[in-house]
Amino acid sequence: MFSLISTVIDTTKPPPPHFVWPHPQSIELLPQFFTINPNQFQIIVDSACDTLTSAIARYNPSRLFIQDCSQMDSSFNGTNFHTETLNLRSDSNHLGELRNLTLLFTGECERYPYFGMVERYYLKVDCEQGAFVFGESIWGALRGLETFSQLLVHVGVDQFVLHTARIHDYPRYSHRGLLIDTSRHFLPKKQILKTIDAMEMNKLNVLHWHMTDDQSFPFESETFPQLSRKGSYHASTHVYKAKDIGDIIEYARLRAVRIIPEFDSPGHTFSWGLGYPQLITACYDEQNQIKGGLLDPTSAVTYSFIRKLFLEIAEKFPDKYFHLGGDEVEDDCWAANINITSFMNRTNMTDDYERLQGFYVGQLVKIANHLNRSSIVWQEVLNSIGDDLPKDVLVQIWIEWPSVDLRWRDAIGNATAAGYKVLLSAPWYLDHISATVDWRRFYEEDPEDFDGTEQQRKLVIGGEACMWGEFTDASNLISKTWPRASAVAERLWSSKALNDSEKAIPRFREHGCRMRRNGLRVGPADGPGYCACDVAM
Amino acid sequence: MFSLISTVIDTTKPPPPHFVWPHPQSIELLPQFFTINPNQFQIIVDSACDTLTSAIARYNPSRLFIQDCSQMDSSFNGTNFHTETLNLRSDSNHLGELRNLTLLFTGECERYPYFGMVERYYLKVDCEQGAFVFGESIWGALRGLETFSQLLVHVGVDQFVLHTARIHDYPRYSHRGLLIDTSRHFLPKKQILKTIDAMEMNKLNVLHWHMTDDQSFPFESETFPQLSRKGSYHASTHVYKAKDIGDIIEYARLRAVRIIPEFDSPGHTFSWGLGYPQLITACYDEQNQIKGGLLDPTSAVTYSFIRKLFLEIAEKFPDKYFHLGGDEVEDDCWAANINITSFMNRTNMTDDYERLQGFYVGQLVKIANHLNRSSIVWQEVLNSIGDDLPKDVLVQIWIEWPSVDLRWRDAIGNATAAGYKVLLSAPWYLDHISATVDWRRFYEEDPEDFDGTEQQRKLVIGGEACMWGEFTDASNLISKTWPRASAVAERLWSSKALNDSEKAIPRFREHGCRMRRNGLRVGPADGPGYCACDVAM
Repeated sequence: MFSLISTVIDTTKPPPPHFVWPHPQSIELLPQFFTINPNQFQIIVDSACDTLTSAIARYNPSRLFIQDCSQMDSSFNGTNFHTETLNLRSDSNHLGELRNLTLLFTGECERYPYFGMVERYYLKVDCEQGAFVFGESIWGALRGLETFSQLLVHVGVDQFVLHTARIHDYPRYSHRGLLIDTSRHFLPKKQILKTIDAMEMNKLNVLHWHMTDDQSFPFESETFPQLSRKGSYHASTHVYKAKDIGDIIEYARLRAVRIIPEFDSPGHTFSWGLGYPQLITACYDEQNQIKGGLLDPTSAVTYSFIRKLFLEIAEKFPDKYFHLGGDEVEDDCWAANINITSFMNRTNMTDDYERLQGFYVGQLVKIANHLNRSSIVWQEVLNSIGDDLPKDVLVQIWIEWPSVDLRWRDAIGNATAAGYKVLLSAPWYLDHISATVDWRRFYEEDPEDFDGTEQQRKLVIGGEACMWGEFTDASNLISKTWPRASAVAERLWSSKALNDSEKAIPRFREHGCRMRRNGLRVGPADGPGYCACDVAM
Repeated sequence: MFSLISTVIDTTKPPPPHFVWPHPQSIELLPQFFTINPNQFQIIVDSACDTLTSAIARYNPSRLFIQDCSQMDSSFNGTNFHTETLNLRSDSNHLGELRNLTLLFTGECERYPYFGMVERYYLKVDCEQGAFVFGESIWGALRGLETFSQLLVHVGVDQFVLHTARIHDYPRYSHRGLLIDTSRHFLPKKQILKTIDAMEMNKLNVLHWHMTDDQSFPFESETFPQLSRKGSYHASTHVYKAKDIGDIIEYARLRAVRIIPEFDSPGHTFSWGLGYPQLITACYDEQNQIKGGLLDPTSAVTYSFIRKLFLEIAEKFPDKYFHLGGDEVEDDCWAANINITSFMNRTNMTDDYERLQGFYVGQLVKIANHLNRSSIVWQEVLNSIGDDLPKDVLVQIWIEWPSVDLRWRDAIGNATAAGYKVLLSAPWYLDHISATVDWRRFYEEDPEDFDGTEQQRKLVIGGEACMWGEFTDASNLISKTWPRASAVAERLWSSKALNDSEKAIPRFREHGCRMRRNGLRVGPADGPGYCACDVAM
């Protein structure tokens, strides 16, 4: 499997640094190392599983062995630690040539990633047995393979170095997401696939697809074709057809990334009404012009429509979760509509628009349940429904408005005290870009830093970085999102104790350069510096 | 020259809108129009001039006739005004097919653009004589050609529409610049050339190249090779070689763009000292470690070095102007150096570090003069030298610190009152990106809105948008700079009276889409919307 030249450890040498991102739960590197020639290297897997077969083809050679502009980058104040190893073969720590990585896993060849899937893996490189990645599931094997790729150091033409290592790794949270918004600007499929590439490199596992909003409806529905014909920016080019969605889900599946669709309602639905005006609450402004864009929560038409639309969404999106939205419902339009106010009087809701919204979302949760889907909602829904919200609905915390003393720490405390599982997004709005370093602020926020019991803390199941689309489109999606989202990825994967952003800088910078080497046009989020790959852009 | 089908103006039709950016001083469009088939169109020029020959080859067909994703974009609330013209040939306003544009100019076939070059042009499309661009110089002819390209509307395969038009146009200011920073991050040549493409489309005429700073020294000097060998991020890949600089200057010349180099000193020079430590003022921090990176303004070594370096710069950069820098000199390091303090005592400058800086810049102005170069300085230099600063030195106003009541309106008033010509940059720091619409704020700032006389206002010769490089590199240079810099471009070219950013929105959005059609990955600076070309990215 490999030729053993020497096993004498030069104990005078310090262990080499590593640049794995997100940081593994436990990692140990030793001075002993193998060299690898990409032309004489293979990944061996013992059981057939299409996900792993596909991963092996993807990683070997392209993802493992990047030789153009792939010197270890030294734009940080670390050590360019392999420039001294020109005479690797005569180095007493050189263990010889490594020719294989063995990829093992337990469990089934599962088709789709899912909430709670096992992502734990062990990675071992030693002089006795060579290199192993052992996943406690196929998903764990994928995560280990990514880590393996991050351990390789390019040191010369067809020559890479791999240190002996012992890694035991697993995620802190099960739900580690990124929200993209395809309504404010359309995002071409190519950019979504690149986003999934970056997510894999950061061990994120949920792409929260905020599909629709007031501005456009790019989902091409077979049931209701007028939605995108009238509601998209351009009915033939700026839409996601069934094949596009299938391609994206398949691409994500192979990288252990779930796709959760969000068709936000009953607010943020102006674009729905362009094709189906009957869905929208009729109300008028001071000039008697029709305005608004709220769905009508009192009309049977609405629920019948949602039922059919959700059926189609469930057929297209295999994930167990739907995101129902439910944020920012401005109820003045409901208040101005006589049908709605009389409905509210009949049902003893008079003037209580939060209850009306709660009623609406409650119906949607039931519709989703009928389709065997669980629901996620934005945090306002919990306020409006209160304890009647079924306990299996996940609540996504996004509000941080210090000026009116609305703080995510309070909201997450309240939601978990009421027994709900929560996702945190409030401190991770990537679209709120600043003109200076902001990733360190993202990095230092912790979802469990709130007043509450241990029991409450266990209800935090993860979080999501959000890249809202008002000022983000195909031109800058990758350069704005990355590596800023990487800060959140590490927070959600790695140990809570790992919280010193200063110490993280060299790894963060190297990780940014690594994404560039992999063809991603990521931005310079940490200030002045460079990557070897700059020049190719 | 063209076949006349009809000259009957349908007077019931409103004049068509136009989307020319920056807005011409005077423009009149009429409902009558020609159609153009790109395969049967040529630009005729009567006198030979390499700049125009090259421009014609560039514009026809590539810049004039973009057929992929080149429908008039309708992401704004304007009218997609040519969708109704499917039967153009039977339209009573159709004047027939136009086969030529005649390009005329007066004056010499000048080689390099320069401060004060004439950029005035007339553009006429009428039913009698067809289409003419008449430049009052070759530079004016180039500007007119760009405007001509912006009048063409793609309406079908091999079919474009051009309305009859009368345009008389000239710039409000002679100096309309964009600063790029190649020290905080290296910018590959390809990205600089794309920036020049965008500048041409916006009629900007000065690329202010902030070449060096503390962080890196990417200029490969033949006289002092250690500057980039030690001071650049990477001595072979992250440098500008003589050929790169020559290519950039040539590319810019052909687009009427000047290149003004800035080698900022005596502060912002840490990178100079990596190759030539003798240039740097020795001083020590509290731990007795050497620190700082100010040039030593009291040493003959410094001036001898600058003299030779400037000679090389003058050989490589043909423009009449050098930018000397002179900003943000933190003098505590000078104060801690015994050689410097004793020099100051000898020369009666004791403790007056502004005077010392003034002395330094005064020497540099003289060195530049000997090389037949005029100087530009950042505004602090005027404070430090005072009226001894030669009156031909341009002062660039950049400071806006409301917290300490330092305002550009005061600074520009003071500088012009003292008789200096000024450039404004303070309100146009593009690197200070906000998470919302900011181009309208840039657009609404006017360089002449300060307290002063008419005479003072005449001393405002232009301005520059500044894209400092701390968080900008090859990944996002174009998407961050454009179309935000377009707001400044219109302010500096068009009439002061044109100052309603609300009205400018449709043109601004169409201009952004136009830059995309021309292959520039510009960002979505005005919020939600789309361009037909999104999907290609």
